[in-house]
Amino acid sequence: MHGSHRRHRGRTKREYRAKPGTVPGAITVDPNAARPLIRVFGFGPTAYTEQEVTDLGCLEQFLETWPVTWVNVDGLGDAEVIHRIGAIFDLHGLALEDVTGVHQRPKVEHYDNNIFIVARMLQPGNRFDTEQLSIFLGHRFVLTFQETPGDCLDFIRDRIRKGLGRVRACGSDYLAYAILDAVVDAYFPPLEAFGEELEVLEDEILLKPTKQSVARVHVLKRNTLAIRRAIWPLREAVNGMLRDATPLISDDTRVYLRDCYDHTVQIIDFLENHREIASGLMDIYLSSTGNRLNEIMKVLTIISTIFIPLTFIAGVYGMNFHTDISPWNMPELTWYWGYPFFWLFNTAIAAAMLYYFWRLGWILTSWTRPPEDPRRHSNENKDNP
Amino acid sequence: MHGSHRRHRGRTKREYRAKPGTVPGAITVDPNAARPLIRVFGFGPTAYTEQEVTDLGCLEQFLETWPVTWVNVDGLGDAEVIHRIGAIFDLHGLALEDVTGVHQRPKVEHYDNNIFIVARMLQPGNRFDTEQLSIFLGHRFVLTFQETPGDCLDFIRDRIRKGLGRVRACGSDYLAYAILDAVVDAYFPPLEAFGEELEVLEDEILLKPTKQSVARVHVLKRNTLAIRRAIWPLREAVNGMLRDATPLISDDTRVYLRDCYDHTVQIIDFLENHREIASGLMDIYLSSTGNRLNEIMKVLTIISTIFIPLTFIAGVYGMNFHTDISPWNMPELTWYWGYPFFWLFNTAIAAAMLYYFWRLGWILTSWTRPPEDPRRHSNENKDNP
Amino acid sequence: MHGSHRRHRGRTKREYRAKPGTVPGAITVDPNAARPLIRVFGFGPTAYTEQEVTDLGCLEQFLETWPVTWVNVDGLGDAEVIHRIGAIFDLHGLALEDVTGVHQRPKVEHYDNNIFIVARMLQPGNRFDTEQLSIFLGHRFVLTFQETPGDCLDFIRDRIRKGLGRVRACGSDYLAYAILDAVVDAYFPPLEAFGEELEVLEDEILLKPTKQSVARVHVLKRNTLAIRRAIWPLREAVNGMLRDATPLISDDTRVYLRDCYDHTVQIIDFLENHREIASGLMDIYLSSTGNRLNEIMKVLTIISTIFIPLTFIAGVYGMNFHTDISPWNMPELTWYWGYPFFWLFNTAIAAAMLYYFWRLGWILTSWTRPPEDPRRHSNENKDNP
Amino acid sequence: MHGSHRRHRGRTKREYRAKPGTVPGAITVDPNAARPLIRVFGFGPTAYTEQEVTDLGCLEQFLETWPVTWVNVDGLGDAEVIHRIGAIFDLHGLALEDVTGVHQRPKVEHYDNNIFIVARMLQPGNRFDTEQLSIFLGHRFVLTFQETPGDCLDFIRDRIRKGLGRVRACGSDYLAYAILDAVVDAYFPPLEAFGEELEVLEDEILLKPTKQSVARVHVLKRNTLAIRRAIWPLREAVNGMLRDATPLISDDTRVYLRDCYDHTVQIIDFLENHREIASGLMDIYLSSTGNRLNEIMKVLTIISTIFIPLTFIAGVYGMNFHTDISPWNMPELTWYWGYPFFWLFNTAIAAAMLYYFWRLGWILTSWTRPPEDPRRHSNENKDNP
Amino acid sequence: MHGSHRRHRGRTKREYRAKPGTVPGAITVDPNAARPLIRVFGFGPTAYTEQEVTDLGCLEQFLETWPVTWVNVDGLGDAEVIHRIGAIFDLHGLALEDVTGVHQRPKVEHYDNNIFIVARMLQPGNRFDTEQLSIFLGHRFVLTFQETPGDCLDFIRDRIRKGLGRVRACGSDYLAYAILDAVVDAYFPPLEAFGEELEVLEDEILLKPTKQSVARVHVLKRNTLAIRRAIWPLREAVNGMLRDATPLISDDTRVYLRDCYDHTVQIIDFLENHREIASGLMDIYLSSTGNRLNEIMKVLTIISTIFIPLTFIAGVYGMNFHTDISPWNMPELTWYWGYPFFWLFNTAIAAAMLYYFWRLGWILTSWTRPPEDPRRHSNENKDNP
Repeated sequence: MHGSHRRHRGRTKREYRAKPGTVPGAITVDPNAARPLIRVFGFGPTAYTEQEVTDLGCLEQFLETWPVTWVNVDGLGDAEVIHRIGAIFDLHGLALEDVTGVHQRPKVEHYDNNIFIVARMLQPGNRFDTEQLSIFLGHRFVLTFQETPGDCLDFIRDRIRKGLGRVRACGSDYLAYAILDAVVDAYFPPLEAFGEELEVLEDEILLKPTKQSVARVHVLKRNTLAIRRAIWPLREAVNGMLRDATPLISDDTRVYLRDCYDHTVQIIDFLENHREIASGLMDIYLSSTGNRLNEIMKVLTIISTIFIPLTFIAGVYGMNFHTDISPWNMPELTWYWGYPFFWLFNTAIAAAMLYYFWRLGWILTSWTRPPEDPRRHSNENKDNP
Repeated sequence: MHGSHRRHRGRTKREYRAKPGTVPGAITVDPNAARPLIRVFGFGPTAYTEQEVTDLGCLEQFLETWPVTWVNVDGLGDAEVIHRIGAIFDLHGLALEDVTGVHQRPKVEHYDNNIFIVARMLQPGNRFDTEQLSIFLGHRFVLTFQETPGDCLDFIRDRIRKGLGRVRACGSDYLAYAILDAVVDAYFPPLEAFGEELEVLEDEILLKPTKQSVARVHVLKRNTLAIRRAIWPLREAVNGMLRDATPLISDDTRVYLRDCYDHTVQIIDFLENHREIASGLMDIYLSSTGNRLNEIMKVLTIISTIFIPLTFIAGVYGMNFHTDISPWNMPELTWYWGYPFFWLFNTAIAAAMLYYFWRLGWILTSWTRPPEDPRRHSNENKDNP
Repeated sequence: MHGSHRRHRGRTKREYRAKPGTVPGAITVDPNAARPLIRVFGFGPTAYTEQEVTDLGCLEQFLETWPVTWVNVDGLGDAEVIHRIGAIFDLHGLALEDVTGVHQRPKVEHYDNNIFIVARMLQPGNRFDTEQLSIFLGHRFVLTFQETPGDCLDFIRDRIRKGLGRVRACGSDYLAYAILDAVVDAYFPPLEAFGEELEVLEDEILLKPTKQSVARVHVLKRNTLAIRRAIWPLREAVNGMLRDATPLISDDTRVYLRDCYDHTVQIIDFLENHREIASGLMDIYLSSTGNRLNEIMKVLTIISTIFIPLTFIAGVYGMNFHTDISPWNMPELTWYWGYPFFWLFNTAIAAAMLYYFWRLGWILTSWTRPPEDPRRHSNENKDNP
Repeated sequence: MHGSHRRHRGRTKREYRAKPGTVPGAITVDPNAARPLIRVFGFGPTAYTEQEVTDLGCLEQFLETWPVTWVNVDGLGDAEVIHRIGAIFDLHGLALEDVTGVHQRPKVEHYDNNIFIVARMLQPGNRFDTEQLSIFLGHRFVLTFQETPGDCLDFIRDRIRKGLGRVRACGSDYLAYAILDAVVDAYFPPLEAFGEELEVLEDEILLKPTKQSVARVHVLKRNTLAIRRAIWPLREAVNGMLRDATPLISDDTRVYLRDCYDHTVQIIDFLENHREIASGLMDIYLSSTGNRLNEIMKVLTIISTIFIPLTFIAGVYGMNFHTDISPWNMPELTWYWGYPFFWLFNTAIAAAMLYYFWRLGWILTSWTRPPEDPRRHSNENKDNP
Repeated sequence: MHGSHRRHRGRTKREYRAKPGTVPGAITVDPNAARPLIRVFGFGPTAYTEQEVTDLGCLEQFLETWPVTWVNVDGLGDAEVIHRIGAIFDLHGLALEDVTGVHQRPKVEHYDNNIFIVARMLQPGNRFDTEQLSIFLGHRFVLTFQETPGDCLDFIRDRIRKGLGRVRACGSDYLAYAILDAVVDAYFPPLEAFGEELEVLEDEILLKPTKQSVARVHVLKRNTLAIRRAIWPLREAVNGMLRDATPLISDDTRVYLRDCYDHTVQIIDFLENHREIASGLMDIYLSSTGNRLNEIMKVLTIISTIFIPLTFIAGVYGMNFHTDISPWNMPELTWYWGYPFFWLFNTAIAAAMLYYFWRLGWILTSWTRPPEDPRRHSNENKDNP
């Protein structure tokens, strides 16, 4: 039931490790995963070639021919293919297990002759679902494994094809950096969208809060949390690449990695900021709920307390005491000005009540006026600090 | 009273250290604990034997014969047996005390010739009660002590029997890793169940909150806390095994331990995530309580404020002022169109009130419509970021 | 006024340092403190003696005769006695000042020839008031100073007398460890009591919250805080003894101290756990307050909105419009079936209202049923995960 | 829509990195940015010159002539200019990219022959919007890049012109310090204004809370957050300059940088303080909302419960039971003193009700008295501690 | 306006740095500051002299004559005096700037030949306003600068005069320690007063919460915050003095400084404790607001729901249906026992209602009984743990 539930909502991807008790290092493949599509780039400062590969045997030839070989695998549905690539590039079994177990935290692991990087990449056109991108950085090659086709790396492919920037001139470490940088930079647009939605929600909650606002703040917070879980360990991973002495990453590339690290820190900054503002909005919503209740109750109380005594008085003069038995029995009913006096008396009571409520500040306050922008006060102050 | 209370609820296991003042290093046995059941595996790359042991003397023979001996003790009810095993494998008194004092935090302690690991293992089919698993890792042996029969290690026994994976080929350190890994992996299914329950609760609280929801969130948070107390120190313990230089753990196995460490970090990640979402749900529930109160009060206020003035007017014309005494006494009662005019007047008042409430936005708002899914707005945005 | 207030409540002990400006290192004695009672143990592996001392001169003889001398001082009311003991055992003035200034945080200070340990000991039969226990650990002696007679060290005295455990065979460092361990272990029973009270409160707040529950949660949190202030720095202190290289503590004893350190960590674990659960209970209580208000208001609103229109209609037909003046003036009053029709009409209105409230879910909901155990849902899930 | 929204509000500047996928190290210029205005200072202990530069070629001459050259660029709208300055002073491409990508976190980066500092500078007359100030500190030069004309550095220009202070006598490192110090000190006046607004808000919320107060507290918290995001990493950056051994900063200047570091710590102190007080105010506002509701409900309850029974009694005597049929049918209506007795009875009921409410403490409490200053109690205590 | 506001409230001292852009190292004097009063102590183990100084020239003579010279400056209104003292004792310009800029965070700075300590001293008889105390510790001298006369150092002066304690026998470092210790110890009495006020507030909020309680908790929290801002960096500063190797502080004095450090830690402990309890009280107050609202609404609901049906029935029998037209028109009015039956019926309805409310637990609950002490339950438990 839960499975179908989640499917038609499409809210959360299954992220947990599937079966406890599987042999460590075994490559287990999700039977629903897509068949792998393998695209290889080979390039050097002056030339490049690009090829869709079906026979894995040609990969070794790429490795010999080109200064840098980039093998990109889209779809993890064939354990055999992944196993053979692992053999060709001499990858560790545990790393290969993590490639197909698409539930990893971002991390960097140093093996003898390569660095294994796990990152989580936002799917294009999606604001918070991530797919796992596994990167192997070796001496003359970069391998990338994705769960599904479609990614944010087309900029890099274009730059390789057109020879833009430094990517063709530098080694495999610069390519790995460029991929990581593209992954990190792809988090900025949804963050910007979150920030804008937060501003809209802020306006809404300060001026005209509705029940929907709270739920939207909650969804925003949860999505922020999801991005945070993807980017926080990535920051640690990039930092690890910066700090650890490995011959696979040149000093030149380290300068660029520092830039990439700065971007992750910036994203975390924004996330924390969003979270604090969202928490504050929740408090304001709660206070506004209380305010609205106060105003509803004021309306009820004013109307009730004005009319209840009047109704009582009208009730009194509806009583059937026999006026003819004694002069003490409801003589008002027989007065000449009795009825006008009744109205005079009632009007006086109502006026006294209204005056009392007005002095308490309950009348002529905010619920009759259109809501005012509460930030105006602050903005005025801003002009003459 | 508390004891029986707890027993029929079955909620919390007694976890505290029993009697202050017992001699340090003394093995104290819970008189209700099960009698020990001892099962020994001896194996090497090519062969294995498996035996239920009653005479402890044969353990030494195992140690001599097999490259790796795994002694598993189910049930801690016999101090003599534990004492004798301690003597055979040369274990420290304090460690043996911790084996029977089944209330330990997960930890790793390095003794001269063995490593003592305490972990907390989820009982199969149970989502948050843990039992203590004590592991001794020596040069050619692994000892495990459990409180009750039934564990999550059958995968490993099968792999030993069938020679699957690397467990037969590697030493005792790999076996200890495999056991730890199985313990850690057993936390994923209940975590997944928690996550699913959290999603159900999220739907429930956003769309149709009830009093039960809060209690269920609380229970979920408490269970999350219980798992956190088991897994957080385990992370530290595994990290300690990774960092400390000990000849008992080979570099090959360290690579696997790093994988196990990653899993503990992942579990903590999920737990923190669950906790934040659960806290947010609590806030939303509180706000929804306020919203429902507002809507109840709106109903009351609208009905009351419409009818209270009308009732007053009806009361006025029920008064018994003598219309024959003066022309000022309730002349309306004697008008030809008096009664129709009364209804006209009342209808006008009611209409004015309704218009006023409609302008305030109190009418035709959410309480008459079915509740709407508040996430729709966000999902729409998602499509065109 | 405040003083007497506190005295008849007996809630908080005065803990602050008394007079700013006293000379550092001066021994200032609380005039109300008890007179010291000095009891000395001298023991070695094979023999022991025990004596209540009035003449301090004999202490030096103990030091010479016995491998380990344990001087316990109950009551800090005589500066002269403390001064002389300080002279005999060569103690630093600042340490002696701390002995009588019974307001210290737990700490460990290393002096040239002894280690000064301050711990806070729970008074037996008391769940959160602590007294200061000052311990000096020297080469062949241990000194302990307590504020009042009665402590949790009788176990150790018995072990010395009966030669149980290792205490007679080991040196003064093991005795100091045993004392610290007894102090730490004495925190477990009140913690267990807290945990049980928390479970009772949890039941109470989830099922039938009262105003008293909140206050009891608050008192529990405050007491937890008090224990935390005693045990948190003690953990640091024990850790300091573990880490610092001092010849006064042997490596054998360090292993035991590590065990003691584990216990302090375990206590802090429980405290944090208690605190989180208590905070959660507070939230649930707040939400239950809102729920009860909602239910009260539902009752009021249903009764009011049903009867207010009916009362209005009854009022209408109580009006005295003259039915004889025109056929338009309240003709209903003269109908043959007028009164039955009135009841029919009213019943229809009431039924419509009830139907409306039933559709809103306000009727036949929880306030008529006995409250249900909200944890049942979770427990059911537990059986088939 | 969002863009225009933000523009007419003028609330938030766009801060996010613009286009993912741009080549790293490429200088991308905001097409709306102002054209650069370049002003150069050259000075030594005894002389100075100041010049607005259009031909960048003269900068090299400045470098040769003067001990210190300060190039200030206002406006980042011309990539060519920035590129050429980068070539003249030998700046790294990534640093130049950060200069025009005006969305950086404050940071310090050490390049081979210069230090690159990013700070965020408050625009004069603005309390929380910051612009990016990029500073390059080289051996004999300081470069500063700002987004818009107008800054808080005129004090320094004056001191150079008039030879005040040490700025002329010291090297480029002191100038860079002076600029940083001016940027940091410019945060104090708005912080002071925040503190004063917080005091006003505190008075308001404690004595006479309105809906506006909450929104103003929220705006203040958000602005505090904005400043915190600018100043927190700046503290780290200044600390980095203090700690890192670089020949570009002399020990003398380090002493001054320590002072600047102290100022950033002080600002963070104030910010944290503001934040805690603001959070506390939010809690008080929530509690005051509840209090006001209580008082509104008290008014309603008192009036209702007094008049509802009275109205019932008046209704009773308005019934038309035929008094002539039986002596049991409403004999009160025919009593001689019936009507006066009715009033007596009603007055007694009302008095009993009022007495009951008075004993509950609902009458003659705070809502009839002007609100009292709650701090008076504390201030009185202050005089006799 | 704000200035006058603050002045007549006397709540907050202006603490911010005055003018951004002043030359670093320049001594700027508050024109309203008091004129300096300089008092010099010269002392050695056997003798001392004390003198009020107007001619600064004699200070050098003091330095030559006495082992320790203590110059205390009360009032910072004369830049010239401070400048000359700086010249005599060879003080750094930045340190002198901090002396007059009386807004510093507590800190310790090591200069070549002296240590500059900034502390914040509680003004005697004031619970939370602090003044800046600047201390220079040199080889044979201690300088102290205060904002206003009156301090907590008279104990030290007395000890110097009477030769009490170690102050005369030790060097300038012990004097500096004694001053710091006096400053720290002066925080204990107001903390004790806070703790007592917190207990009073706790009683008040648990038993009889008023609106004033919240404000007083808030003021207490703010004052706690103020002390925390003074003492937290002081702890760091004292710790710095302990750790840094400087020949100006002897090892003997370091032992005493450790004691002073312990006191700062103890103060922070109390502050954190106060803060947690105060936060808890706020929660309880909020819950009590909800409880009171519930009880108010119960009163209203009970009275309303009992009388509303009764009033309706009375209204029915007040209707004027013509009983003579048909036997179906209100025959009850003509029954012999009609009126008594009406009362019987009404009493039955009211009784049923009351029984219903009693079963809901709304009647005979807490609002009629005096509030009970909620801590009684806990205290009872205490006796039999």
